[in-house]
This record gives sequence, structure tokens and C-alpha cells, in this order.
Amino acid sequence: MGSQITIAVDGMGGDYAPREIVKGVAQYASSHAGLSFIITGPKEAIEAELLLYPQIMNVEIVDAPEIIEMAEEPGRAVRTKETSSLVVAARLVKEGKADAFISAGNTGAVMAAALLICGRIKGIKRPAIGVILPHRSGKYVMVDAGANADTKPEYLPQFAVMGSVYAEQVLGLEKPRVGLLNIGEEAEKGSSFTKEAYKLMEDAPVNFTGNVEGREVFEGAADVVVTDGFTGNIMLKLIEGVGNMVFEQIKDGIRKSVVSKAGAALMSPVLNGLKRKSDPEETGGAVLLGINGVAIIGHGRSSSKAIVNAIRVAATSVENDVVGLIAQGVQNSG
Amino acid sequence: MGSQITIAVDGMGGDYAPREIVKGVAQYASSHAGLSFIITGPKEAIEAELLLYPQIMNVEIVDAPEIIEMAEEPGRAVRTKETSSLVVAARLVKEGKADAFISAGNTGAVMAAALLICGRIKGIKRPAIGVILPHRSGKYVMVDAGANADTKPEYLPQFAVMGSVYAEQVLGLEKPRVGLLNIGEEAEKGSSFTKEAYKLMEDAPVNFTGNVEGREVFEGAADVVVTDGFTGNIMLKLIEGVGNMVFEQIKDGIRKSVVSKAGAALMSPVLNGLKRKSDPEETGGAVLLGINGVAIIGHGRSSSKAIVNAIRVAATSVENDVVGLIAQGVQNSG
Repeated sequence: MGSQITIAVDGMGGDYAPREIVKGVAQYASSHAGLSFIITGPKEAIEAELLLYPQIMNVEIVDAPEIIEMAEEPGRAVRTKETSSLVVAARLVKEGKADAFISAGNTGAVMAAALLICGRIKGIKRPAIGVILPHRSGKYVMVDAGANADTKPEYLPQFAVMGSVYAEQVLGLEKPRVGLLNIGEEAEKGSSFTKEAYKLMEDAPVNFTGNVEGREVFEGAADVVVTDGFTGNIMLKLIEGVGNMVFEQIKDGIRKSVVSKAGAALMSPVLNGLKRKSDPEETGGAVLLGINGVAIIGHGRSSSKAIVNAIRVAATSVENDVVGLIAQGVQNSG
Repeated sequence: MGSQITIAVDGMGGDYAPREIVKGVAQYASSHAGLSFIITGPKEAIEAELLLYPQIMNVEIVDAPEIIEMAEEPGRAVRTKETSSLVVAARLVKEGKADAFISAGNTGAVMAAALLICGRIKGIKRPAIGVILPHRSGKYVMVDAGANADTKPEYLPQFAVMGSVYAEQVLGLEKPRVGLLNIGEEAEKGSSFTKEAYKLMEDAPVNFTGNVEGREVFEGAADVVVTDGFTGNIMLKLIEGVGNMVFEQIKDGIRKSVVSKAGAALMSPVLNGLKRKSDPEETGGAVLLGINGVAIIGHGRSSSKAIVNAIRVAATSVENDVVGLIAQGVQNSG
């Protein structure tokens, strides 16, 4: 492998696997000759898809005949299906044969594979999911988007460290402003959970700028929004839900009127720009922070475009040593 | 008072008080001669505004020279400012001189006034804030939108009862489907809080249909969405924030292009319809459920339109005996 970056991609993860997965890898690989790719999955199935891109030289296949289904119990699936496309991809990272793995499969199973196979960075209390989301004039990282259903306040300073490294290295934000998601702006506001977390955040080795409310998040009040995994997951799904609803209703309204239809055609650059900005396919998926290796969780409905973006995030994370910098940051935080 | 309904309105609550408050009351009063209104506030200030509507006969003024400011500490303000417009409005309900009170002032102070002056319905563990929100094809009630920063699972069955009565009587939904906001659909999913709440909800005297995720909420998966006050308040602010962002960006995009501007003009019925649907001014504000009397918390930036909608919700709540039905529902739940 040397200094060359290798990215393992679970060829069977997601609703449109393997076709869209292989297509995404091929697209990215063709324009990034300096990167190597490994697609895991049943050899013939992947090979058949890969034949569509005969010019690609930097993609190989590692055979993995088993498949973990969306509804399977994560921990058990990962433990019992040792030759599944997901487990094989994670093991490539563990064995140093790949620097990152990407899967758009069963989210719980991807987390379980990352944790059980790659393991956590020394000193990390709990890995957490980071997602990149849009605000009015840019992007921010939200941590934890759902890795921990029950979060203790003492995990949050590490969430902040991991989110800061990610915002710096992947979004390119300097000295990212870290905000604690809360239901009031003042330090003494909030639940007993956020009050305790606030105090701990003040001592974290990050640029903590205080509480942020749900509304301010969209105004760009913070580069890193830290919250417990329950609230973070609710937030993620709400944002997706509101976005879908708004676009559905615009479409519905347009369908009902010829005049609106003409208007929509003229407005399409604006509507498309907005749709693109809020599209989960554009954000590169979720990253599992705190793992010994880069682990990217793609959306189950990932198309090739989503895979391309996930690869971009994975490659940037590896190039900028997100894992090493998190390890260092956690050590500094004692 | 007899069988006539009387609604007390805090004339000094909110950023645009007293002008917009009085205007809203006058608008509603002029088309609803069967209702009586009392506006509280400094007599001359309110009178000066009311002079603009000389034809209105069903609005009177009760003098209340003090004002509770937005930044004041709620409990202390309510206790010390006995002749404030808010406290006087709440006291009218307590004394049976009004059936409901509305204030667009300091939210914490409105809650404190309702609790300290009107008191809670017998058997209610914790009052909770209910808000009406839009989904793809209708509306739903979310409880608790922020009255309780720290919520125990055992409060949720009562939140469900209160939300169901409200959805039935104010939204006119029959046998409203109650969903528990959660990060997974199956009963065993979620945080330790939601797992415990789920079990208690199964025994509540409501039409409990299970967990709902953030995305499904916008698809109309439940008529009543029950959650803890922290998550509920985050949810409310996020929805407002996303909505604002989307409309800002549509406006920004339009400003940059003449073609888009033409498109937007043609599309304006669609955009305005959508804006109206997601406008907090249209939803009638938040209701504090579990109080001995109808208490409506208006948005701080309430215009006359928001006040009109708040009055409509207040009147409907009184006409349909929301308070009595909640008292009954709570008794039935043991």
C-alpha cells in the first residue's frame, strides 16, 4: 500500500447495490488515478458490474459471498457473517490493507462492524456519528447524530474534539466554533443534562462558544453542533423530513397550475440549488468518529452520486489524518 | 358572564404591543359579536389604540399599569408585578371573569402566571405546551414543546391524554393517533427514556399507535406527537429554522436573477401557500395544557394576524371544553 490511499467499499450495502455502488466507485476512481479501491461482495456480481467500466485500473475486488440484510440484528449479523461484504470491508481497514471503509448498508451493522472489528481510538469513551449539514451560508458538523441512544454529559467534550477535527480537516474551517444544542442561550438554561454538559464543555480543548438553539443552527451560529445521540438523530431526521415536505409541496402546487409550472421552470436554478444543498446525497454520508480508521455510513438509498460524495469525504479524512488528530486531541483533553 | 365566552388578552405582551394586539382583538371582535374581550394594560395606552376601532362594542379594558419585560426572571416577575398586564389577565381567568387568557409576552412568565395564578387541573403531574404544526396533508399537535426541561417518562401518558383532547376538539380529528417521537420504529428501539415511556403509553387511555421518527412526522404518521419538553422545544425551533432558511434562500436566489424573479412571480401562489402553512403566526400559538383555564402563549413577534389566530384557538378550546375533557381524561387514566 505504501503512501497510496486505499478505500474499501461494501459493494452490497444499500438499496441500489451493487449497481449504484460500483458505478460511484468507478466514477471516482476514473478521475483519481492516485487512489486505490477495493470493492467487497460476491465476486461474480461485482465483476459483472465492473465490466461496464473496462478502462478503470485502480479498482480491485475482494470476494465476500455473504450479505447482511437491512433488517438483521446488527451485532449478531457482524459476529456470525464473517465473509459478508461489510465485515470483509471493515477487516481490510483493521489489517491495514485499506485506510477507510464505506458502507450504505444496515446502519447499526456498519457501526457494529467499525466498533467490533476496527475498534475505538485509545481514550475515546464513545464513538459518535458526525454529519455535515447545510446552514444559510455554509456547512456545519453535527455530533452525535445517533450512535448513542443514551448519552452521558461526560461524553460531550470528546464529541466536541472529534467534531472540531472533522470540521477543520474536512470542511476546512479554522478554529471551528463549537456550540451546545440547547433550549436557551444562557449558560444556566436547559435540562439537567445540558447544564452539566455546559460546564464540562468549558474545559474542553475546543473553541466552545456556548449554547445554540435550533433556530440559530440554520443561521450558521456554530461550525460544530454538539448534542446527545437521541436529540441528534431526531434533528437529522426532522431536517430531512421538513426538506422533503417543502419540495413535495412545491411540486404539488406546481402540478395544479400551468402558470406556476411556467414559474417553476424559470425558477428551476434556484430550486435545484436549494435541493442540492439540502440533499443528503450531497453531504457524503455520516462518519463514525472515534474509530481506529475512517468509517463512513452511507444513506440506505445511496445512488452513485452519494457514493462519490462518501468517497470524497473518506479520502479527505485519510489525507488529512482525521484519525491521528482525534487521537492527539483526546490525549490533550486528559 | 353567563354562557357568554370572555377572552382576556394581555395588551402589553410581545414586540408589537399594544398596537398589533389591540388590532388583532378588534378584528376578531368585530366579526364575533357573541364573544366578549378584555384587554389588560395601562388604560390610556390601550384606550388610545382602541379608539381606532370606534365601532367595536364587545371589548373592554381592565387597567394594569405594570409591564413584564421579555428578559425578566419569570417567577419573580409574576410574583412581584401584581398589577402587570399579564398577571391581571391570568387573574381574570382565576376569578371566573374570563374563560381564557392570551399573552405574546415573556414565555416563561406566561407559564409562571398560568401555573401560579390559575393552577393546574387536579391530577395533572406536569402541565405541558402543545403546538399545532403542519404535515404534508394536514396538521398535528406536538406535546411537550418546552414546558418541562426535564421530563420523566411517567409524565408522557398525561401529555398524550392532553394532546388527544386538543387534537380532537381544536383540530377536529377523531380518535387521534398518538405517536411517541423516537429514533426507531420498533417498540424496543430508542433511549432508556423512550423505552420506559413506550410501556407506559401502552396503558394510556389514548389511541397509541407506537413510535414515530422525525421524518414520518411530516408525512402525517401521527395526529399527536408526544415527546419530552427538551426534544420538543428543539424540534419546534428546528422546524422554524429550516422553514426560515428555505424561504431566505429562495428569496436570495430570486434576487440574483431576473429570470428567477419572473418565475417567482408566477409561482407566488404556491410559495405563499407554503409560507402560510409553515408560518407560526398561522398556527394560533402554543397552548399550555393541564392548566385550570385556557392559557395561550403567543409568539413574541406576534402581529395582529397571530393574535387573531390565537383568539380562534382560545375560543374553540373554551367552546369545546378542552379543560373539562382533560380533567375527565386524567381521572380515567387513574
